[in-house]
Amino acid sequence: MDCVFCTLIREDSAHWVARRPETRAFAPLDPLAPGHTLVIPAPHYRDLFETPPDVLSQTMALVQDLANAMRAALGAGGVNILSASGPGSQQSVPHLHFHVVPRWPGDGFSTWPAQRSQHRLDDDPIRRLAEAMTTETT
Amino acid sequence: MDCVFCTLIREDSAHWVARRPETRAFAPLDPLAPGHTLVIPAPHYRDLFETPPDVLSQTMALVQDLANAMRAALGAGGVNILSASGPGSQQSVPHLHFHVVPRWPGDGFSTWPAQRSQHRLDDDPIRRLAEAMTTETT
Repeated sequence: MDCVFCTLIREDSAHWVARRPETRAFAPLDPLAPGHTLVIPAPHYRDLFETPPDVLSQTMALVQDLANAMRAALGAGGVNILSASGPGSQQSVPHLHFHVVPRWPGDGFSTWPAQRSQHRLDDDPIRRLAEAMTTETT
Repeated sequence: MDCVFCTLIREDSAHWVARRPETRAFAPLDPLAPGHTLVIPAPHYRDLFETPPDVLSQTMALVQDLANAMRAALGAGGVNILSASGPGSQQSVPHLHFHVVPRWPGDGFSTWPAQRSQHRLDDDPIRRLAEAMTTETT
């Protein structure tokens, strides 16, 4: 088992913020902000595409509780949620994780991308997505 | 009712990708990438802090289905999820929303923040959060 996050769980070697039966929260090595925390499902799922919906719900419940704790315990004004899944997405560790980043007015940085994708598609991507979603849900 | 997203729903004036009973997906005005989509709960909740957990689960279920559609219908390699809630978080519209951004290898842009928060706390924020989470869950 080579997954870095699974190793943290197995060796109990993270700086834990929360340990629940199905989910964990812990400090990243290189925080974007004081209190920046990662939230993961405890079982190994590589990314959003592999994660069962009920596990995703449990993971987001911890994200939400943690966001509330950031306001109550750190005095944050708000939070950002950032996550990457799959090839080309800048996913760093192949175990689903959500970055929860506390924000304060005047904290002097931006989490909104400054650039735009250079990828081009031949036809209308929104129409293609809408058609795919219709097919899926009917 | 002044919320921009509630107005889109009421006037049926968005470029819709999906309309489910409790959730919606639609194209943003200024996409970061082809196929960039916003996912929201249909009822008005200002942010993550206000949203009931079951509504958050329904919203994330649509995020996940949409991510799968981005791979199937657009040939994306992966996706980014980005969200902002609360003062100081760069939240643009005060109605909970998740950006789902399709990514392709070599798409020439970054969604990972280049900067770091300048906010400073006096003591260990991770310990404060862990204490707050323990209090909350016992």
